[in-house]
Amino acid sequence: MFRPEIKVLDCTIRDGGLCNDHKFSHDFVRRVFQALKNAGVDYMEIGYKSSKDQFSPDKFGPWKFCDDKDIEQVAEDCSLKISVMGDVGRFSPADVKPRSESLVNTYRIACYIKDVDKALKLTEELKAKGYETFINIMAISHALEPELDEALSQIENAKYVDGIYIVDSFGYLYSEQIHYLSEKYISTCKSKKVGIHTHNNLQLAFSNTIEGIIKGVNYLDGTIYGMGRGAGNCTTELLLSFLKNPKFNLRPILDIISSDFIDMMAKYRWGYQIPYMITGSLNKHPRSAIAVMDSKNWKNFTEFYEARIAEEDLV
Amino acid sequence: MFRPEIKVLDCTIRDGGLCNDHKFSHDFVRRVFQALKNAGVDYMEIGYKSSKDQFSPDKFGPWKFCDDKDIEQVAEDCSLKISVMGDVGRFSPADVKPRSESLVNTYRIACYIKDVDKALKLTEELKAKGYETFINIMAISHALEPELDEALSQIENAKYVDGIYIVDSFGYLYSEQIHYLSEKYISTCKSKKVGIHTHNNLQLAFSNTIEGIIKGVNYLDGTIYGMGRGAGNCTTELLLSFLKNPKFNLRPILDIISSDFIDMMAKYRWGYQIPYMITGSLNKHPRSAIAVMDSKNWKNFTEFYEARIAEEDLV
Repeated sequence: MFRPEIKVLDCTIRDGGLCNDHKFSHDFVRRVFQALKNAGVDYMEIGYKSSKDQFSPDKFGPWKFCDDKDIEQVAEDCSLKISVMGDVGRFSPADVKPRSESLVNTYRIACYIKDVDKALKLTEELKAKGYETFINIMAISHALEPELDEALSQIENAKYVDGIYIVDSFGYLYSEQIHYLSEKYISTCKSKKVGIHTHNNLQLAFSNTIEGIIKGVNYLDGTIYGMGRGAGNCTTELLLSFLKNPKFNLRPILDIISSDFIDMMAKYRWGYQIPYMITGSLNKHPRSAIAVMDSKNWKNFTEFYEARIAEEDLV
Repeated sequence: MFRPEIKVLDCTIRDGGLCNDHKFSHDFVRRVFQALKNAGVDYMEIGYKSSKDQFSPDKFGPWKFCDDKDIEQVAEDCSLKISVMGDVGRFSPADVKPRSESLVNTYRIACYIKDVDKALKLTEELKAKGYETFINIMAISHALEPELDEALSQIENAKYVDGIYIVDSFGYLYSEQIHYLSEKYISTCKSKKVGIHTHNNLQLAFSNTIEGIIKGVNYLDGTIYGMGRGAGNCTTELLLSFLKNPKFNLRPILDIISSDFIDMMAKYRWGYQIPYMITGSLNKHPRSAIAVMDSKNWKNFTEFYEARIAEEDLV
């Protein structure tokens, strides 16, 4: 699939950082940067912008905060654009330098649909500082239709927003739903870039990304070897092997999977696991699955399933 | 997705047997049978019919041969139908008892497209013995269109064939290709049951099965926890969680994954691995990937990739 408008955003360090409290070493992040650059990837999302009043640097690694001095140690000014994610309510744009003083190119604001107005305010301030801006509406499989329609209209009318993402936080959606949402986002947000971010609870992250592409979505999130919270994400290596653009080169990604990600996966255990499959199939937040995967009881799948079903008892 | 015509065929013991030379214990196969029966699965494919002149019982376990006496030790006559696969040229229907003397209900004949005439002859003999018959045309991503059209017409005209399977042996296809093949099989083989068997090289086994369902395919192959050669298959647990038919019960499958399949996967290492991804993305047989995964060199992904690319040099 080749369209010149298609861009790949690798968010290994950002979404993968949810596996290790963002404690990647600078050396490792530098090597990921080089691998992505050499692979022809368009964006690297390097972490979160977070307020140190809310999160302690003693508990979280540097990629929870993305200070410019840390980014400068691992990245360089080149064709690979640097993106940072900010959660609504978790950071202040007052802590963000002007674009001219930072290696960061893009801010993606993550919010639940009820907080779209707050996200719009943040993107306005970040655009005034010179950044490209996206709004990522999380957990879209829980959004009510009238709220989504209103949010998309607001975003379309906000000239300081460059793009909008379809985000399947719970890994619940399948192709027909991706088709529906892609058509809705693209037809409502005609002047915006539209992207997709998927999770692999049901082994549908890559296929759902393809279905977004087929419907015209041009901004594609991936992570190396699928590293990400819980079941993880669409893999960057599958995306690059699928896209026909000759600018992409798979080899640097294969090399860093070999040198780093095989061992990291054995340690952090992201990927297809039955508890993540269960929360995905039930359209639930993966937090209960992540908790059980960290317990000695992780293999008691039926007990976990019964507990999730019990939460749904009609009352 | 609920259609009463939809049937799930679990081929864990058959396709999974390619991981261990079919050396499952009778006790284990009996427990898989019970789990599938309690889960409401329609068919259990229990192994291959193979000639002992060609394959030694010293080297292969019982499920390479599927003698009726072995099947009788693990299965019973009930709503769960027993299926056996026979490869063209690897067994003789003379070794097959009449249906009335066997617990087997169904024979699936696997062949490459060049051998469809041989498959038709075998199905004719098996139908005369009383069995339900399917033809599984393997490696469909290598089939030339005129050959496929001719084969499907022949199958449609053979009244002793009950069904035909779309088989993505190399795990190469994605949704648009599954749509195309599903429409072709269903429109050509109007009087036949049409099924789909997928491999997970590109993490598309489940999604491609869904795309087959959307286009009207009713016979769905799965394996427990995806166990199968190389990257493995569409998982039975994902299929049952997706299908809305209330006859399906996920719990027995979750239980046996917990008790057996987690440990077996650590031993046999089926599933998403970069060498299988590479052969899948290049539309190649997985044999080179299986070989490298059994070697100490398995993590040298770029070397493996370069070797596969080199095989494709224009000459």
